[in-house]
Order: sequence, then structure tokens, then C-alpha cells
Amino acid sequence: MRTSYKVRLASYPCGLPDESDWTITDEPTGEPGPGQVLIANEYISLDPAMRGWVSPVRSYLPPVEIGAVMRAGGLGRVVAAGEGARFEVGDYVSGMTGVQEHVVLDDREVRWIDPAVAPLPVHLGTLGMPGWTAYFGLFDVGRPEPGETVLVSAAAGAVGSIVGQLAKAHGCRVVGLAGGPEKCASVVHDLGFDACIDYKDEDVADAVARECPGRVDVYFDNVGGPILDAALTHLNLRARVVVCGGISQYNAVGAAVGPANYLSLLSNRARMEGFVVLDYLDRIGEALRHLTRLVRDGSLRSREHVVGGGVAAFNESLLMLFRGENAGKLVLAL
Amino acid sequence: MRTSYKVRLASYPCGLPDESDWTITDEPTGEPGPGQVLIANEYISLDPAMRGWVSPVRSYLPPVEIGAVMRAGGLGRVVAAGEGARFEVGDYVSGMTGVQEHVVLDDREVRWIDPAVAPLPVHLGTLGMPGWTAYFGLFDVGRPEPGETVLVSAAAGAVGSIVGQLAKAHGCRVVGLAGGPEKCASVVHDLGFDACIDYKDEDVADAVARECPGRVDVYFDNVGGPILDAALTHLNLRARVVVCGGISQYNAVGAAVGPANYLSLLSNRARMEGFVVLDYLDRIGEALRHLTRLVRDGSLRSREHVVGGGVAAFNESLLMLFRGENAGKLVLAL
Repeated sequence: MRTSYKVRLASYPCGLPDESDWTITDEPTGEPGPGQVLIANEYISLDPAMRGWVSPVRSYLPPVEIGAVMRAGGLGRVVAAGEGARFEVGDYVSGMTGVQEHVVLDDREVRWIDPAVAPLPVHLGTLGMPGWTAYFGLFDVGRPEPGETVLVSAAAGAVGSIVGQLAKAHGCRVVGLAGGPEKCASVVHDLGFDACIDYKDEDVADAVARECPGRVDVYFDNVGGPILDAALTHLNLRARVVVCGGISQYNAVGAAVGPANYLSLLSNRARMEGFVVLDYLDRIGEALRHLTRLVRDGSLRSREHVVGGGVAAFNESLLMLFRGENAGKLVLAL
Repeated sequence: MRTSYKVRLASYPCGLPDESDWTITDEPTGEPGPGQVLIANEYISLDPAMRGWVSPVRSYLPPVEIGAVMRAGGLGRVVAAGEGARFEVGDYVSGMTGVQEHVVLDDREVRWIDPAVAPLPVHLGTLGMPGWTAYFGLFDVGRPEPGETVLVSAAAGAVGSIVGQLAKAHGCRVVGLAGGPEKCASVVHDLGFDACIDYKDEDVADAVARECPGRVDVYFDNVGGPILDAALTHLNLRARVVVCGGISQYNAVGAAVGPANYLSLLSNRARMEGFVVLDYLDRIGEALRHLTRLVRDGSLRSREHVVGGGVAAFNESLLMLFRGENAGKLVLAL
């Protein structure tokens, strides 16, 4: 019987996940039933949100159960199709495959991927969940107007890099925040942001004041912590703070650090709003049309950071996100 | 020459204001010029927001300058009218009179008060700025639907007591938070809230979970601090947090405490939004119509806490707000 590797959750991590939080098992690959497909995963998406999925608290998705295969987006090839399945062997599909080499899913749980449109990892990045997240978070929640100033944290990351480019193409002044001179240089020169603040190198509040002289109309937050506080200090009247993530707090042991300057929302009549991209799945077509057009006309550069090592490298690769070691969308190749 | 007393700001308070932060002066009363009125103040509104007005930081109004008369809403009688002024001697008017016995203002800076509608202090409370604040904050920012659960902090205070009653009349389940058994009993029995949590007596998060079994749809926050955090923990999907004030943080020396659980906004796709009633002054008529109707039909009880002592008692009276010693709208009688 054919077998393949899976990463199962062994314990809920305390602080940063480590190897002992996972069990790697070798299990029967399985066969697709009617309407199902067997997928050979080629790429696994590594996302900061994964840290939240392995916290045993109420959130927008139930926590991964102890013993379950780790939840993950993935992309692979159909290697067997059950009776009546709407995909054929050889098709590429993407969905919540989990961190495993093979998976059997209902055909309704995956979507077809056209490898001719872009290299496969791009479908997990700019044309995948991070791209949709950037699109809906920016336009539906942040609602920037041309001429406004958009500040984006984790600007070299999967979502932030797209948010800034979408805002720039929309006619906004776009300022990023990233860690280290290489990332900042790339954000400005490769991605076309108007400026990028190196939060490791200077006082963030001072730098935001300098780079956003008209104050901040939309702050797209992926990080939380002191950077969120600095952004709040420089909000414009009726500003919008988009709460997309808070990676600086995901591994906090005990209480997270809240934004001390939240009363800036009052004095500026501003709004801080969270969203979850899963609520927008019925509008993916709209996002893909917008994103694909910008990729094709060259105004949206897609950056993927592909690491190898297969499922055994999952934990170590995931930690790269929390160490800020990725540039662009982090993808694990199987 | 006739003179009268004024309270001028001597220094920006550090922490709780004290007597040394003010200078009480005896100055010429002044005469109204064309289009102006001389007002003999009878009541001064004491508001938590005053603490922010004497902090030398950017906010929704410029800070009171050192040496200036302390900013305050007030209500008094016209004792002299300049040429062409649209009020007559004997009229009652209300406006930003400052903490002083007499003031000369342009007639456009005050509004006419009809003492037949309600006792004078009510025009500084339910039918004044606190009432408008409750009305616009609840309906324009919080947007409750009948059947939803509305949680209100400082429920025995000027704004909170009105918010809860407006929400109740709107068909919501209404839960208050107040300090001490007398206040809580009054909030339920006199004001008609469905429940009131004594934040001094029990774990607030546990109590919110108990009293809001369907979670919180609208949290109207007047206090910030740990109570805001507890409310965030129990938000419902698409909840709205109305940031009206943060009295627990107004006297903080150094950084305020931010809401550690703010990422609940993300998982619940919730919105936290600040507002300032001054933005709604062109819609006061709408608020007054709504509030007056409810006062008349008995579904909105107005509570004023009138203290005496004149302008000399200003600082001591103001501190009552921060000690939670008032029940309802705190007003200083001159």
C-alpha cells in the first residue's frame, strides 16, 4: 500500500512552535471516492495565521485539534479522480490541503489552477489567499481614495507587498514598514512604494511623521505591537485602520500588548476594523480579475520565497515568518 | 465696576488635576457689544472630557491655553444684550461659557433654552451634550438592531445612562457596567437596563459572558482599560465598539493601557470607531426631537447630580467624576 507523510499537531505550542509540537506520520495515501480527488501536494502555503490556528481559543476558525493534520493551504496535482469528480488526473488544484504529501478532498473543496497564467507558487501568493486578503482588506475595509496616504506594515511580506502595490496603482501615496535595509530597499525599488521605514533602525513614530506629512488615511496592519501604536499616533481625521494580522503578538505567552494610543480613534473619528478573507470567498473572481490584470500590465510584482525540504521542514520553515526571514510569500515545496 | 469670578488654567495637570492647576480671578464682568449677550451663568457642566482639554497634546479640540479661562459648557440667563442681539434680557441660553460667573458671547455661540421643557440642569444633561453624544454615538456609530445586545460602561454616568435607555427603547437587550451596588441597582430599577454588572465586585469578563449569553453586538465604551478588554473578549460577529471616552485612562501618567484583546476585532470582523459629538451639531434638532419625545413618554429618565459651591468648587467637583462619585449628569451650580 502506498504511503505518504503528514504533519499532525502533537500539542498546542506555548510561544514559538517547536518540533515537539508536531508528529510526522507515514500513513496510507488513500483513494478518492465518488466526487473526490487524490491530490499530490507540490506546494504548501506558510502563513502567520497558522499560529492562531494552533491556539486553543475561540477565533474565526476552530483550532486544529490535537492529533489532526495541520491545516494549510496547498497546491498540487490530481493523481486520481473518483467517479464523477469534476477534475481529471493531471489537473492542478488548490485548497485547504493540510500539511501532507497527499490528500483526498471533495472536488468542491478545491479550485482549478491554470499553470499557464503564472508559475504555481504565485497561485498561493498574489493570485491566492494573500492576494485576495490584500484586495478585500484594502478596498472593502480600508477604502482608500486616490491621493490619500496608505501605510502598510510587513510591507515585504506576502500580503503587505500586494497591499502597497494595489494602493499605489489606485493613486495613493504608499509608505511601507519592514525590517532591515535590504527589505526596505526592495520595497521601494522593486515594488514601487513611495518610501519604506526600517522599523529596526529608527524611531517608528518619528519616521511615520516624516514620511506621512499629511498623516495616515489608511493603516493596513499585519503586525500589531509598537508599530500599530506609532501608526495610531499619526492618524488623519476619519482614518481607517485595517486589522489584518498581528504577527508581533501571535507568539505572546500571556496577554498580548494592546495599542496604548487607541484613543486616537476618538480624537480622529477613526475606525479600526478587522476582517477575515474567508468571508469573501464568493467574490474571489472579482479579486482575481483585478490582481491578474495588474500582474499582466506589470504594475503588480509577485514575490515568492520558496523553501525546500518537504513536510519535514514545516516547523523550521514556519519559524522563518516569525523571524522575518522571508521576503514575499513563503511557500514550502514538497 | 462690576466684577465676577473666573477659573483660569495655571498649569497642565500631571495625573489628577489639583487646586494648584487653576487660578481663580476676580475680573471685570464686561459689556456685550453689538450682536453679543452678557450671560450670568447658573450651571456649569462637568465632563470627563475636560481632562483631555487640559492635556497639551493634539486632540479633537486644541488644548486650553495656560492662562485661559477653563473651557466648559454652561447655561445661564442673559443679563444684558448688545445692539441687534437675537436674545433678550431674561432669556436662558446655553453654550461653551467657560468656568466663570459671567461671560460675553456672540449670540451665534449660544442656543436658546426653553425652561418650560425641563428643569435647567436637564438641558446640560439628557437634552444637552451628553444626550446628543448618546444619541449619535449609539445610532450613528453603534447602529444597534432591535434584538441585539448592547453593553454600556459607566452606565450610571451622564452619557451611559442615556445610551442604555435609548437602546432599550429601541428593542435591544441592554447590560450596563457601573461601580458599586447602589449604582447598579439604580441602573436596573430606575433606568430599566436588563442587567448591570458591578465591576468593583466581580470578574468583569465572567460577568459579561453571563449577562450577554449571545455575546455583545454593540459595546458603548466610556471607560477603556480592563473593562474594554473584557468587552472585546465577548464580541459577537460584526460587533461595533463605540469609542466615546476612556475615563480610566484620562489621568494616566505616561502611556495609557491599550486593549490587549484588540485582535478580537479581527476574528469577529468587528469595528471599533471613535466619534466626537461636535461633528453632529448640525443635527442637534434630530437628537432633541428623539430625546424629548422619550423624556415625555416616560421611557427616558433624566438624572442630574447638582453640586453647589460656585466656581471655587470647580476642581473638587471635577474630581468626583474620576472617583466615580456622581450618579447621572454632574452639574456645578453657581
